[in-house]
Amino acid sequence: MFELLKTDSATGARRGRLHTAHGAIETPVFMPVGTQATVKAIMPEQLRELGAEIILSNSYHLFLRPGHEVIRRQGGLHSFMGWDGPILTDSGGYQVFSLSDLRKVSEEGVSFRSHLNGDSFFLTPELAVDIQSALGSDIVMVLDDCLAHPATREDAAASMRRSMDWARRSRAHFDSREPSSQALFGIVQGSTYPDLRKESAARLIETDFAGYAIGGLAVGEPIPMMYDVVEQTAACLPVDRPRYLMGVGTPADLVASVARGVDMFDCVMPTRHARNGWLFSGDGHIVIRHARYREDPDPIDPDCRCPVCLKYSRAYLRHLFVSREILSSMLNTVHNLFFYLDTMRKIRHFIESERFSELPIVT
Amino acid sequence: MFELLKTDSATGARRGRLHTAHGAIETPVFMPVGTQATVKAIMPEQLRELGAEIILSNSYHLFLRPGHEVIRRQGGLHSFMGWDGPILTDSGGYQVFSLSDLRKVSEEGVSFRSHLNGDSFFLTPELAVDIQSALGSDIVMVLDDCLAHPATREDAAASMRRSMDWARRSRAHFDSREPSSQALFGIVQGSTYPDLRKESAARLIETDFAGYAIGGLAVGEPIPMMYDVVEQTAACLPVDRPRYLMGVGTPADLVASVARGVDMFDCVMPTRHARNGWLFSGDGHIVIRHARYREDPDPIDPDCRCPVCLKYSRAYLRHLFVSREILSSMLNTVHNLFFYLDTMRKIRHFIESERFSELPIVT
Repeated sequence: MFELLKTDSATGARRGRLHTAHGAIETPVFMPVGTQATVKAIMPEQLRELGAEIILSNSYHLFLRPGHEVIRRQGGLHSFMGWDGPILTDSGGYQVFSLSDLRKVSEEGVSFRSHLNGDSFFLTPELAVDIQSALGSDIVMVLDDCLAHPATREDAAASMRRSMDWARRSRAHFDSREPSSQALFGIVQGSTYPDLRKESAARLIETDFAGYAIGGLAVGEPIPMMYDVVEQTAACLPVDRPRYLMGVGTPADLVASVARGVDMFDCVMPTRHARNGWLFSGDGHIVIRHARYREDPDPIDPDCRCPVCLKYSRAYLRHLFVSREILSSMLNTVHNLFFYLDTMRKIRHFIESERFSELPIVT
Repeated sequence: MFELLKTDSATGARRGRLHTAHGAIETPVFMPVGTQATVKAIMPEQLRELGAEIILSNSYHLFLRPGHEVIRRQGGLHSFMGWDGPILTDSGGYQVFSLSDLRKVSEEGVSFRSHLNGDSFFLTPELAVDIQSALGSDIVMVLDDCLAHPATREDAAASMRRSMDWARRSRAHFDSREPSSQALFGIVQGSTYPDLRKESAARLIETDFAGYAIGGLAVGEPIPMMYDVVEQTAACLPVDRPRYLMGVGTPADLVASVARGVDMFDCVMPTRHARNGWLFSGDGHIVIRHARYREDPDPIDPDCRCPVCLKYSRAYLRHLFVSREILSSMLNTVHNLFFYLDTMRKIRHFIESERFSELPIVT
């Protein structure tokens, strides 16, 4: 399923190719986030044009609305949302942790109340697999227990071991189903404790997954600490499987994490920042609402080749933003996603040409 | 500027072509409304693909924000918003009437306070022309005095005569400027009084305009009365100039008004209804939020060839609507605008083939 094409000798950055039932993905890859069966403010055709190869969608949201069985009966998530490329779905664990009310974790699973209407649910590792089976995603994530930062060593160890037990149950349940073209990824936990991360990785490898994610980061820990955990964890993972750093991050985080051996990323930052008028550029970013852009005829980033920068001025984009026009979110999303996807193209190109360590760090 | 290509012998429906500085428009034509220098929730490229030939933008909104002089310095409205097709701008009179606070009309003009921040302004026929000159639209509308329905004959007569005086001043001011490629349209007023409409038309024709609009309708009068006024007014207008019915209307209104000799229309209905989940179809319409569409795999309209109906189910569109996703407004807008623009294509085709009276009346 995963071909490792090249490893940068200076840094360990990897150039790979991940095969899925809906096509191959060139790695390192960034996955735009399509929480509610839509990447917000952009059409699937536009995502393709920008070079998106795979998107992520959230099981928690789709389980609550419209319901995973509704999507199954509509032919699965690809058909439902009109995206025929690869899809990775998360397990819902992180959203239960971050969005729901009255979360209560036991060894069996996690009970919670819907953030939409207060209904009670009980999510288990087995149900998380079943939800993602119904959605028909290409890559299925195991349910894990999410922990706030900072956590004591004791709490982190207990939570990690619970997650590893759940990963084993997820694997068993996944394998007990009808054979499918889906792939199952495990998630390394262990907070910021290197020995717990190492133990977690070892347990997952014993269970055996098609890919390994690094979870529980970007939850408030300092950036250098995050990079250290990424580096230590990646070193514990098999070279012949893809490594996915969940929920990360800034463009600089992507470059730094690729340098530490990560292959896959997802983050709401480009799309959410777009809707808030925070626009990425090679120099950093601009906040488009600022009065200084009122009559600025320049594009967001003079060096950017995205469809928005080729056509529209900062003055127009500022006007749309302050006028609360939907087109503001649409155009800003195109620009920010292009910036992220183009950053990944540059990363891949620099690895291929053995110049990864020369890559300018952006933002 | 206007070529009358064919007149339907049975009804008086006209097939024409209007030449502007940004290209020719096939009439009868529907103009999508781009109030704040954007047709809401759609990109200019998509408008083109749907077959939009000309759009309308609102002077009142652009005068207040970002300011017409800002747009002039950005190279005009076409360049600012990235639409290189024809643009018609209204004068702002209707928005001052319907949106602003503390409106006070005198013979000289109309004073009002901005609905955005309460700032005071004084709009005159001359300023309305100057604003539209700065915007650089292809078709400029004269400032008129707008009247609520119902109006007494006395009020309607006074208001109409004021509008005719303003039309004359608009013409004089327009002609006193540097020669431009813009065209100036007059607006017939007179409420629902046939003799006032006739007098208004005669005065405008004496002043001489490139086109004639029928204003002051769709403000609450019964539909049959509106059709009567349209028919009576159209009969008073020269055959060699385009006729534009302002702010109208439903698909059925378009067909009925074309039958009465109207060539041009604008209305927020397709775009606003789209955002509210009201979707047009050959059978009438559907309200997409209804629970009955929760698992409906059919497109909005099985006979529609729009990009949304070719790809998406009612179930998905309902999910997007109830989830308040931006893509809901985007896809619904594509469908509703396609429906309107396709209705106009059918109208033109049926006139050309001398079968206009066989055209099924939609919605």
